[in-house]
Amino acid sequence: MPSPDRKISESTVRRLSAYLRSLEALEASGAEMASSGELARRAGTTAPQVRKDLSTFGSFGKRGLGYPVVPLIGSLEAILGLTREWRVALLGAGRVGAALHTYPFFRERGFRIVAIFDNDPEKVGLRWDDTTIRHIDELESVLAGEAVEIAILTVPAAPAPALADRVVRAGVGAILNFAPARLELPPHVVVNEVNLAMELELLSFALTRSEPR
Amino acid sequence: MPSPDRKISESTVRRLSAYLRSLEALEASGAEMASSGELARRAGTTAPQVRKDLSTFGSFGKRGLGYPVVPLIGSLEAILGLTREWRVALLGAGRVGAALHTYPFFRERGFRIVAIFDNDPEKVGLRWDDTTIRHIDELESVLAGEAVEIAILTVPAAPAPALADRVVRAGVGAILNFAPARLELPPHVVVNEVNLAMELELLSFALTRSEPR
Repeated sequence: MPSPDRKISESTVRRLSAYLRSLEALEASGAEMASSGELARRAGTTAPQVRKDLSTFGSFGKRGLGYPVVPLIGSLEAILGLTREWRVALLGAGRVGAALHTYPFFRERGFRIVAIFDNDPEKVGLRWDDTTIRHIDELESVLAGEAVEIAILTVPAAPAPALADRVVRAGVGAILNFAPARLELPPHVVVNEVNLAMELELLSFALTRSEPR
Repeated sequence: MPSPDRKISESTVRRLSAYLRSLEALEASGAEMASSGELARRAGTTAPQVRKDLSTFGSFGKRGLGYPVVPLIGSLEAILGLTREWRVALLGAGRVGAALHTYPFFRERGFRIVAIFDNDPEKVGLRWDDTTIRHIDELESVLAGEAVEIAILTVPAAPAPALADRVVRAGVGAILNFAPARLELPPHVVVNEVNLAMELELLSFALTRSEPR
């Protein structure tokens, strides 16, 4: 792998993730080799882009034969940091939190939810599988005790920035933010937003412009 | 507004959506004017970018004074297609579907869920608020009867592509896809993906590379 100071764009990582998904589908269908064209078609990009993206990280293909499916899955898992377990905290035990908690991908990929927080007294103390929902007042002690590395925020917009600050001060290095609030955090913290409002507005914008006027 | 053939990039629309959110927060705090610098800071971009994005759609600012908050909210709502109701169908009445169904943003912004589908006999016939869950076999007739314009897919990966094809053949023009499957649809269909696996992999990739090795 290149040195960590070599900048890889977010869109490159998104494509690597799509290649991994495509390779897994190919593996499930029994394929042993995948061409760059096939990966490109499944990931919605071009064959030269596939070859360029993968060559950034090593020599995985065989000229004229394509990429061996199983080894490339292993390489992409290593590149994407999926060969180890990540300790995850869920802040917010509402419906979005519940949906994420049962999302099978988490476990399959090694994202293990080790702590769940809420401020609703009716939720605190409940167990989701083998994790007890803790009060948000216990955030710092639980995050440290459980060695949490990634926090997922599924809280309302108003409390989100202050909770993100607390999470970062407690040593968490990455946040997946579902709250419709912008977080201003130190540059070493990795923040990724999932904004459902924005996703829907992209659709309504496109539909509005495509209609006859 | 420019003619519909003028191409506006997805990243521009995402910024417009962020400006709208920032303006609403400013309105809630009682502000009457917003500078491009303030909008830039809240949306995580630069003041020249804010001015450039907004000038694509009209002259909204007053030199030296900034942008009037309430009128610009109205303009952005019109640009993003939020001044009308959109008729939405939810395919998949699982946990993600349930979380989306109760998401207050939908109603506030005029996205009205008028149809819900599942193939689980225990769910078909149940009511979520005033919408009855219908069997997926009834997809075509219900989509046409309810004049659905946007479909949200919260089904597993395997059935997603075939369901998307059926939805498009039934005349739906936009799909928000939560299924971890790539949809290959005609170019006139607007498709937007929310891939939670990819979002988490962006975090694990960044954390892996930022660690000392």
